[in-house]
Amino acid sequence: MSTASLARELKAALKTYPDFPSEGISFEDFLPIFANHELFQKLIEAFKIHIQESFADKKIDFVVGLESRGFLFGPTLALAIGAGFVPVRKPGKLPGTIVQTCYKKEYGEDVFEMQVGAIPADSNVIVVDDILATGGSASAAGSLVKQVGGIILEFMFVMELEFLKGRNTLPAPTFTLLSGQQK
Amino acid sequence: MSTASLARELKAALKTYPDFPSEGISFEDFLPIFANHELFQKLIEAFKIHIQESFADKKIDFVVGLESRGFLFGPTLALAIGAGFVPVRKPGKLPGTIVQTCYKKEYGEDVFEMQVGAIPADSNVIVVDDILATGGSASAAGSLVKQVGGIILEFMFVMELEFLKGRNTLPAPTFTLLSGQQK
Repeated sequence: MSTASLARELKAALKTYPDFPSEGISFEDFLPIFANHELFQKLIEAFKIHIQESFADKKIDFVVGLESRGFLFGPTLALAIGAGFVPVRKPGKLPGTIVQTCYKKEYGEDVFEMQVGAIPADSNVIVVDDILATGGSASAAGSLVKQVGGIILEFMFVMELEFLKGRNTLPAPTFTLLSGQQK
Repeated sequence: MSTASLARELKAALKTYPDFPSEGISFEDFLPIFANHELFQKLIEAFKIHIQESFADKKIDFVVGLESRGFLFGPTLALAIGAGFVPVRKPGKLPGTIVQTCYKKEYGEDVFEMQVGAIPADSNVIVVDDILATGGSASAAGSLVKQVGGIILEFMFVMELEFLKGRNTLPAPTFTLLSGQQK
């Protein structure tokens, strides 16, 4: 199967919740994919096919996933492509020497952290999260990867809020599985 | 390989941080396992062998993982054993109809939530998290599984702080991979 045909099947499993988490926002819940192991297998397969087609000549060393929903499929994808998984976490949760960066949220700012030494310099990295909105948190994760000398091959998301144009803020090619968009 | 021999190899990969997150606490970091895909594969394999040996006559329907570190390996394990994955999350993050429960933390209380409908009644469930301490958060997750009518076959952890005797508070058999303890 192709990434696009798998994506169509996965898209049908999303559940839409109007006015969540607040009024006027429509929330696309992708958790039904994880509750069904055949769909989850297809999610991983779809990303894997995309990676093999896009980076046939490159070894992906690490998948970097954002806390918390990036943890739901980032490690599984890493295992499927023979890469390591490294988390980007909220402040105060990672022991040892860390790099930090601030990013803007809807209200105020937040901090992301990553362990130094987890990703050796010049490693090929893919950054993953569930949804691309303004791009603030993904950009922050990307800046942590760059601080430790990693090379970002691509940002990969399951979904994208296209009207927010978050992909224009990201410093590497961006792929979202369920919208089928790639630049 | 056996679960025990895989566990020995995995244990060697843990990194100990004294006085994290606060003075007097020694933190065992299991993230180096995830950064190395061969070790991560062995972590999943070790749990899988244990499950096959313990529940040969049962179909595991769901793996339930606790936010956030239970997300790092719960979905991968679910996929490896042909089960669905359902998350237990911190409050306000899950859309739709939810069940809730309170649990005690070191300072004050917190709330865990799970989506209603994710786990049909009478499903066989394994609850996973990285570390068993007092058992408060795992018990809370277990009570959510019971609220929706699921059957908990086992609580499974990577590590255990044995002196806290958390396993005595859990309402189902408990297995911790790296201490090799099972009751």
